[in-house]
Amino acid sequence: MYLVSWFLQRELHFSPKSVCYKDEGTAPCKRNGGKKNQPTFCGGTRQVKQPPTVKHIPFSNQTALIYFKKKLINILPKSKNGNQPEKDSDAAQSLFVGGKMSAPAATQLLDLHSARALVDSVEAFLFDCDGVIWKGDKLIDGVPETLDLLRSKGKKLVFVTNNSTKSRRQYAAKFHSLGISVSEDEIFSSSFAAAMYLKVKEFPPEKKVYVIGMEGIVKELEQAGFTAIGGPEDAEKRAEWKSNTLFEHDKSVGAVVVGLDPYVNYHKLQYATLCVRENPGCLFIATNQDAVGHMTDLQEWPGAGCMVAALRGSTEREPIVVGKPSTFMMDFLLQKFNISTSKMCMVGDRLDTDILFGQSSGCKTLLVLSGVTTETLLHSPSNQIKPDYYTTQVSDFIGFLGS
Amino acid sequence: MYLVSWFLQRELHFSPKSVCYKDEGTAPCKRNGGKKNQPTFCGGTRQVKQPPTVKHIPFSNQTALIYFKKKLINILPKSKNGNQPEKDSDAAQSLFVGGKMSAPAATQLLDLHSARALVDSVEAFLFDCDGVIWKGDKLIDGVPETLDLLRSKGKKLVFVTNNSTKSRRQYAAKFHSLGISVSEDEIFSSSFAAAMYLKVKEFPPEKKVYVIGMEGIVKELEQAGFTAIGGPEDAEKRAEWKSNTLFEHDKSVGAVVVGLDPYVNYHKLQYATLCVRENPGCLFIATNQDAVGHMTDLQEWPGAGCMVAALRGSTEREPIVVGKPSTFMMDFLLQKFNISTSKMCMVGDRLDTDILFGQSSGCKTLLVLSGVTTETLLHSPSNQIKPDYYTTQVSDFIGFLGS
Repeated sequence: MYLVSWFLQRELHFSPKSVCYKDEGTAPCKRNGGKKNQPTFCGGTRQVKQPPTVKHIPFSNQTALIYFKKKLINILPKSKNGNQPEKDSDAAQSLFVGGKMSAPAATQLLDLHSARALVDSVEAFLFDCDGVIWKGDKLIDGVPETLDLLRSKGKKLVFVTNNSTKSRRQYAAKFHSLGISVSEDEIFSSSFAAAMYLKVKEFPPEKKVYVIGMEGIVKELEQAGFTAIGGPEDAEKRAEWKSNTLFEHDKSVGAVVVGLDPYVNYHKLQYATLCVRENPGCLFIATNQDAVGHMTDLQEWPGAGCMVAALRGSTEREPIVVGKPSTFMMDFLLQKFNISTSKMCMVGDRLDTDILFGQSSGCKTLLVLSGVTTETLLHSPSNQIKPDYYTTQVSDFIGFLGS
Repeated sequence: MYLVSWFLQRELHFSPKSVCYKDEGTAPCKRNGGKKNQPTFCGGTRQVKQPPTVKHIPFSNQTALIYFKKKLINILPKSKNGNQPEKDSDAAQSLFVGGKMSAPAATQLLDLHSARALVDSVEAFLFDCDGVIWKGDKLIDGVPETLDLLRSKGKKLVFVTNNSTKSRRQYAAKFHSLGISVSEDEIFSSSFAAAMYLKVKEFPPEKKVYVIGMEGIVKELEQAGFTAIGGPEDAEKRAEWKSNTLFEHDKSVGAVVVGLDPYVNYHKLQYATLCVRENPGCLFIATNQDAVGHMTDLQEWPGAGCMVAALRGSTEREPIVVGKPSTFMMDFLLQKFNISTSKMCMVGDRLDTDILFGQSSGCKTLLVLSGVTTETLLHSPSNQIKPDYYTTQVSDFIGFLGS
């Protein structure tokens, strides 16, 4: 209890504020700008026919603790053996994503008028990184100037990435190496989210976490006070099939975290499978489930969705997903910046992660075509996820706002 | 056309026989012993309200070709670009598995009376291997004597395994090393089934097949006249993420076959992902989808379901499954042995592969508890797959028949 309280104080900079709880309802809520049918920070709304119950209560550290515990721990259904909740991920998704959003009437190509109106109405821009800021290790044209322009207009900037390979510190270094000044506090990676999930879940610090993934996950887990094993250390290990071979695994592993892993191998899959299948109550956490990503600047390669699916295949269990489109990270953002989601704009190149993540949280959404999504896919009848706006790349803002 | 005809002649030993076509209906069919609501070899029945149409026609090589083509090629819906069928696996599953079976009234513990009645009524016993004949490399007690006893009573024996790591030739060698005399022709492995699927599908021999899996798949593909790449050869390859890196893959790969692979790595997953996502019409074939298996005799380790799921995760495509419980292999068996499925008994240790496979084909089914399924699981209310009989291990036959 103390640990979580300490963590919330340290990481989330809670101060006594007002926050509304809207358990189940569709009525407008002041904190999301009066939008109907949009889930907000106010408690992971779901659309029901019952009249809404909205309560405004003082928000202290203690309240925050209760709030997070209620959202993350107490609401999740317990399994029969009292250990890991059954279908954690479904519960988490429904809690955080808040069900299917009603799409806006039409997606609008960003132009002079709408760009200015958008910037005027928004206090914080949330940027995905891969396909928006860079592709692989190559900066996308005009990004530094665009970020400088938005900062000069007093906008807060946040970088929300599903890529778990780096820690926030490593991401800040990458930004700097590309000539962009970004602080660690402005970065929300899925590696950080995995560590925060365990914190909020009050994961016992004496238990271990097995990692399929890279250094970013290990670093964030260690920074949060957990013991991480596996990951890069198991890159060259091989599991041999021999008669009378018993593959030993650590019975004190209480969670497996799976993210993108270019050194995935049978040893790691075997280790993680035994932990999830045989250690009672062992959690199966996925940083994200992106099928592919720009690992280099020329091509899409298998993403974390590949490794997560592999473990799903061998364990027959569904993961708890902490990255986009789960809005788990949004709860942290809202506490940190204290800005209504209606005054945020999520800028991303993916419909099923970035845009869905923004819409699910009640943000405005802007799709850029500099990443994986083409204009044809955006407008295809099969696509049900429609952003508010779309444009070629983020530097288009310079033309609209500079003239 | 010639190739397939040659293949059917060579591999399946077709002779002019009578076979019934029962396109859609639930009426009894002579070839499955008059069982109602059981799909048979007669054309992958589905339960509909229309009265059945049953035709008995002479069965020649040419008819067999048309039959297989109709089942495998022409019925499968074409995708919009005219290449790979959409949801091949669904189509294949519904064709071969024939939808959900109605379970028998009750599962019976094998005893003196029922064992004798079963052996009297059955002409061929189909055995799963792992968990039935052996566990890892350890023979299960009493197996050789039981097989000898059944052979002495004139029963045909067939070994149907989802394990794709070995070719039929390699399996025969394994049987011999364990002191059991089994010919290559009595073995039906999922590696063989993958090669046969491509044959029946008239896969162009000038196209290549990329393999995630072991030597068994490569050997069977080569024996069937195809060019296999990947597999064991790519075990130590690494994919490096560097700016301006383009991962080159062979554009002439027209199919990816995925099976159990203890040397699975990112390079293989990346290669296969690019083939499936970028080579027009590239097939995605799974030998089987078993979550786990007895890789050693002490423990269950991740099975082919792990690797297949990984590629599903990165490609967002469903595979065509050729192993159990798909009854693709059963069609070959039926042609080869010309025995009604009602006179066959499938003996296995898994409910969702072996028993479902047997039931889907109209065989009698016997579950042995010497593998992955416990008696508790068999009788649990959540289990919907009920075999006709169950017993501890195959050698129980000796006690029942020898006395």
